[in-house]
Amino acid sequence: MRILVVGATGTLGKAVVDRLKDKHEIIKAARSGGDVTVDMTSTESIAAMYEAVGKVDAVVVTAGSAKFLPLTAMTPDDNQVAIDGKLKGQINIVLLGLDYVNDGGSFTLVSGILMDDPIPQGASAAMANGAIRAFVKSAAIEMPRGIRINTVSPNVLEESWNDYADYFAGFVPVPASKAAAAYQKSIEGKQTGQCYEVY
Amino acid sequence: MRILVVGATGTLGKAVVDRLKDKHEIIKAARSGGDVTVDMTSTESIAAMYEAVGKVDAVVVTAGSAKFLPLTAMTPDDNQVAIDGKLKGQINIVLLGLDYVNDGGSFTLVSGILMDDPIPQGASAAMANGAIRAFVKSAAIEMPRGIRINTVSPNVLEESWNDYADYFAGFVPVPASKAAAAYQKSIEGKQTGQCYEVY
Ligand SMILES: NC(=O)c1ccc[n+]([C@@H]2O[C@H](COP(=O)([O-])OP(=O)(O)OC[C@H]3O[C@@H](n4cnc5c(N)ncnc54)[C@H](OP(=O)(O)O)[C@@H]3O)[C@@H](O)[C@H]2O)c1
Ligand SMILES: NC(=O)c1ccc[n+]([C@@H]2O[C@H](COP(=O)([O-])OP(=O)(O)OC[C@H]3O[C@@H](n4cnc5c(N)ncnc54)[C@H](OP(=O)(O)O)[C@@H]3O)[C@@H](O)[C@H]2O)c1
Repeated sequence: MRILVVGATGTLGKAVVDRLKDKHEIIKAARSGGDVTVDMTSTESIAAMYEAVGKVDAVVVTAGSAKFLPLTAMTPDDNQVAIDGKLKGQINIVLLGLDYVNDGGSFTLVSGILMDDPIPQGASAAMANGAIRAFVKSAAIEMPRGIRINTVSPNVLEESWNDYADYFAGFVPVPASKAAAAYQKSIEGKQTGQCYEVY
Repeated sequence: MRILVVGATGTLGKAVVDRLKDKHEIIKAARSGGDVTVDMTSTESIAAMYEAVGKVDAVVVTAGSAKFLPLTAMTPDDNQVAIDGKLKGQINIVLLGLDYVNDGGSFTLVSGILMDDPIPQGASAAMANGAIRAFVKSAAIEMPRGIRINTVSPNVLEESWNDYADYFAGFVPVPASKAAAAYQKSIEGKQTGQCYEVY
């Protein structure tokens, strides 16, 4: 398959590329350092990415920012980071990408454990995750031409534990390779509308 | 209690006001026809509403728009309606309202069944609903001064059935009074972080 990975240069993205690269043709996208450049917070940039890449069998997202800060300090502008990045960015990658995905292809978006198992400072990320899970479940029943859509919801990753441990008291991190396996299940399997919890 | 109801003039809002009005002081908010005027898509307008209303014991939202249309026809701009209205509108009512809610008070937001039981044309609404549920669950653990936050997720309402029946094949509508009871539970009870499914 020809697979576009948005966020391919990141912690999760690298693990997904590693898992898929021997069997599939991978096109790496990120703001810099990939095969194609994209800023998912811009619809123009997403459209230009698809224009450059052309038809694919799968679109994978492993990118999406959110601000972590205490709810009592969070402003609407702070929350906008997750809306523009993880939430709208991913949904616009679907809305603008439908015509570029071949019949029977798939989208796989990223959500995350914070929607189910919240931590202090995580409300904005949780919001984006919950939006993606519900969008995926609903969009799945309307996908044209047998296209499927799923989301992978990872626990905090072992590879990120050094940076995040203080936020995630009592969480048991999972290897990025385990989240990557869920991406493979979404891409090579036949399920749709699923949220794969890698907890 | 002194209770601010945003969307008090609508189908759901009227039922909530009816259920609460004998025991509580109700301040009705809407874009027009309430005691106070607010457009929840504008942070300036939300801030002005709180400035006008002052301290309250509970903030209730029964407003929030979303566009219904086929996924294959949905543009990022179409999806923005739900983001600006039901999603950001409600979250900004929380973020900008924290200082106006008395100790031990509450927020009660609206989500909806489409996140759990999707229909064609409902992906944008589902997205907003899922975002609200996850935000509420996460924000609940960070609320200051014993303030609580919940969401009510109604099925399609009997009162809206004439307008919506064609979209909701096989759904069994519930009376708005049943959703209003869940609002009462949220306001007068002690739970927090809950999603009350009125399905
Ligand atoms: N790490 C974890 O423990 C963990 C756990 C659960 C969920 N997640 C989720 O997984 C996703 C990736 O996390 P990560 O830790 O792998 O992040 P990361 O290491 O920071 O990598 C992010 C990737 O996305 C790209 N990217 C960032 N902003 C972008 C934008 N606006 N447009 C296009 N590409 C962009 C980055 O490349 P450029 O900077 O060059 O654009 C990079 O390739 C996030 O949504 C995160 O919430 C992570
Ligand atoms: N009706 C249903 O079957 C049903 C089922 C599940 C969930 N819901 C959800 O419940 C909520 C209310 O639905 P409804 O059927 O009661 O709607 P509705 O009858 O159209 O009433 C909407 C209320 O919100 C106000 N409003 C609308 N836009 C606003 C804005 N930008 N700022 C401030 N106030 C605004 C309206 O007054 P103005 O126009 O004067 O502003 C009105 O008071 C929605 O989020 C809907 O998704 C409804």
